[in-house]
Amino acid sequence: MAKEVTNREDNYSQWYNNLVVKADLAEQSAVRGCMVIKPYGYAIWEKMHEQLDKMFKETGHVNAYFPLFIPKSFLSKEAEHVEGFAKECAVVTHHRLKVNPEGNGVIVDPDAKLEEELIVRPTSETIIWNTYKNWIKSWRDLPILCNQWANVVRWEMRTRLFLRTAEFLWQEGHTAHATKEEAIAEAEKMVEVYAKFAREYMAMPVVVGHKSAAERFAGALDTYCIEAMMQDGKALQAGTSHFLGQNFAKAFEVQFANKEGKLEYVWATSWGVSTRLMGALIMSHSDNNGLVLPPKLAPIQVVMVPIFKTEEEHNAILDRFDTIKKELESKGISVKVDDRDNLRPGFKFAEWELKGVPVRLAMGGRDLENGTIELARRDTMTKDNLPQEGVAQKIVALMDEIQDNIYKKAVDFRSAMTYKVDTWEEFKQKIEEGGFLLCHWDGTTETEEKIKEETKATIRCIPIDSFVCEEEGKCIYSGKPSHRRVIFARAY
Amino acid sequence: MAKEVTNREDNYSQWYNNLVVKADLAEQSAVRGCMVIKPYGYAIWEKMHEQLDKMFKETGHVNAYFPLFIPKSFLSKEAEHVEGFAKECAVVTHHRLKVNPEGNGVIVDPDAKLEEELIVRPTSETIIWNTYKNWIKSWRDLPILCNQWANVVRWEMRTRLFLRTAEFLWQEGHTAHATKEEAIAEAEKMVEVYAKFAREYMAMPVVVGHKSAAERFAGALDTYCIEAMMQDGKALQAGTSHFLGQNFAKAFEVQFANKEGKLEYVWATSWGVSTRLMGALIMSHSDNNGLVLPPKLAPIQVVMVPIFKTEEEHNAILDRFDTIKKELESKGISVKVDDRDNLRPGFKFAEWELKGVPVRLAMGGRDLENGTIELARRDTMTKDNLPQEGVAQKIVALMDEIQDNIYKKAVDFRSAMTYKVDTWEEFKQKIEEGGFLLCHWDGTTETEEKIKEETKATIRCIPIDSFVCEEEGKCIYSGKPSHRRVIFARAY
Repeated sequence: MAKEVTNREDNYSQWYNNLVVKADLAEQSAVRGCMVIKPYGYAIWEKMHEQLDKMFKETGHVNAYFPLFIPKSFLSKEAEHVEGFAKECAVVTHHRLKVNPEGNGVIVDPDAKLEEELIVRPTSETIIWNTYKNWIKSWRDLPILCNQWANVVRWEMRTRLFLRTAEFLWQEGHTAHATKEEAIAEAEKMVEVYAKFAREYMAMPVVVGHKSAAERFAGALDTYCIEAMMQDGKALQAGTSHFLGQNFAKAFEVQFANKEGKLEYVWATSWGVSTRLMGALIMSHSDNNGLVLPPKLAPIQVVMVPIFKTEEEHNAILDRFDTIKKELESKGISVKVDDRDNLRPGFKFAEWELKGVPVRLAMGGRDLENGTIELARRDTMTKDNLPQEGVAQKIVALMDEIQDNIYKKAVDFRSAMTYKVDTWEEFKQKIEEGGFLLCHWDGTTETEEKIKEETKATIRCIPIDSFVCEEEGKCIYSGKPSHRRVIFARAY
Repeated sequence: MAKEVTNREDNYSQWYNNLVVKADLAEQSAVRGCMVIKPYGYAIWEKMHEQLDKMFKETGHVNAYFPLFIPKSFLSKEAEHVEGFAKECAVVTHHRLKVNPEGNGVIVDPDAKLEEELIVRPTSETIIWNTYKNWIKSWRDLPILCNQWANVVRWEMRTRLFLRTAEFLWQEGHTAHATKEEAIAEAEKMVEVYAKFAREYMAMPVVVGHKSAAERFAGALDTYCIEAMMQDGKALQAGTSHFLGQNFAKAFEVQFANKEGKLEYVWATSWGVSTRLMGALIMSHSDNNGLVLPPKLAPIQVVMVPIFKTEEEHNAILDRFDTIKKELESKGISVKVDDRDNLRPGFKFAEWELKGVPVRLAMGGRDLENGTIELARRDTMTKDNLPQEGVAQKIVALMDEIQDNIYKKAVDFRSAMTYKVDTWEEFKQKIEEGGFLLCHWDGTTETEEKIKEETKATIRCIPIDSFVCEEEGKCIYSGKPSHRRVIFARAY
């Protein structure tokens, strides 16, 4: 099975596509650019969803649901916003089909044209701020801390499973505040929630930073992001949190009476992560044998495979498995016994490696006699023969060890692929090899665009809290003075 | 607050609309027929979602996600299906907007017309069976037991919050089986899951039955349903489970090799419940003071209101509340202390009654001295003065008592409003008063349609397992022989 996956070194992009399909995570659908998220892939997304939702609620947020459709006129109300989304959106123009009078099938009924076209939401700022208008009268109504789990559509021309699809699943938080300071603090808090989730659950190191003006969300005054490095050295933006200022409040006339009774415009944030995180997860840890899942997000944490010659042996092994399984489950570990009768153990091993299950247990006739069991780790691909006695307890500890090891490996990789670069010649050479280039930049969009044109590299972020970057220097491109380094990379 | 809700007796429909809005459950959006589900309403839906999802997983199902869009041609592949959904669907025809060259705002870009129009899914049988085609080769690939949580759109002309909206949230299970018997067993199993959920969690009695041919899902051979009675005597279909035969397998050419290696068409079911359940919940239990929520679905199960004259009293009460709150939370009960400083206790009482919180605790100066606390039940609107000591333990038991009492009340109401009716004269009179009419019917669609024309009553279901209905008789309308009674009612 794993043999069907292209080698990572030969063609990274094909390796990724292969893996997504072969590991049963997702596939292309009959609708251009839209994917089917298969049960195994969806189970990982459910774990992400569950943990993120918990973290949002712990930080005081509640969920709500807003309409899928946005009236066309709403999009136009915030100038930069419409500029950012109008070119790639699905437009609903009619509300009925009818039987084709001239043949087979159905056609759009021309009598059912909508008065105003509806846009399938690419993001929900406009419909939500139009709603908040009615929810907010006084400072007592603030803050509003809402999140929604939803599907959104952006008509991307080049799509890739999870990384860039026409429809994707995400969560979008939309908050309303009485002061600028509170809104900025919220945007910062949420990017930190994302960073914590990425590091502790996805085992994926990320840099927290600001986007440059050119890379900001359409309609934001400031965009915070988490940036991760994939195994090919390319950057992937894994989550963003926007300080929207009063832009949407002004576009939708949302004012509140402050404690002195004076009307003020409301301050806003929005923040989101999407099924793109699935792509980030895959490309952070996986190898030529398939997925490598961090235990905290693995739908199956331990798989057990019996190896037997006789029915008697088979039954005896299943009995032992059952005991260990119950003990593991009582400790909160998810276990699958793979007792399929038409496949050989070796095939099963390869399949569960492909699917990234962190720990595999196998038991054969000799193990039965000796009271032992074979334990294989997916992250290191190492095997160990252990006493059955106490193996469940060992596995509990091993889950943390694997989680930490996967994270450490990713951190080490990123460190090895992060360079301080101080000359334009070196920049042009290094960028071909991939990685994060820490460089001085003069702060102008003009320079940023020229660098992008010449090298396809973009400013991934202006890191926050990184002492490495805080120093005086000269712009790598223009030679003008700079007070800090920023991260350049090619990106997904 | 509660005063603003219309009396149920004066105008049931307006009472319902008032309640949904005043209790902060949902509101109309700027998009025709689409609602905003507000945080309090969404919190109830989340509890429904969580419990149903648990029950689906316990019965062997997994979640997946399929595209929002369905190619127009897919809908036409199953003849009855397209007939059922073509007249009310949102059609995407373009994928881009552009700046209006003749004025403000944006217009649909005529150059971005789709080759084939896409329908926003009204239900997903077609896109899913087109996908299953690639998943199913042999009997070993069966059964497939998938569910998806999603939004769907049906362009209804007359909409009502939760009951009938253009967009709604739901889950749709889609299963594939090797045999007819297995598919029928699945459809039956899932309607029983729905019935159990309605009874045990929503505290809502339901009748399980078959739909008549005329009321079946478009494309099904048999539709099972749960039917509930609202407080105005009208019926509400709360969930359906369909045996689809081989219709979709044939439409999308989905065959499997059986154990003998012969190709057979796959058997299908689909089943769903939606945010309509929110409407059913509201109309099953609520009263003129507002919502009445069964404890198992209440986002807040206990609310605590301090009543004080001095800051010292205030602090002492909050201290006691904190102790009780911690004890309740340790027992899995959700608690809110309402310490808002700008509202009087009486106002708070009315607000939490409106929001249907099952138990309210209040404490004043005298309670502090006496070591007592006031406990008010939302379902009975009774109050009791209790010792603070042991009150948490009492509340745990009370949660079950309230859950049972709400259910019993609804069962009693339904019993009182269910009649065996044997003459057409009585039928016409009784149907005006509301309720379930148990009548003989000759089994023809013709009779069913005439009864509907004359009285607006429909066959809600042909009950399963009801000994009351199993008897010989004559059709209420045609006088022809009948072997069992069915349920007639006017319905939402």
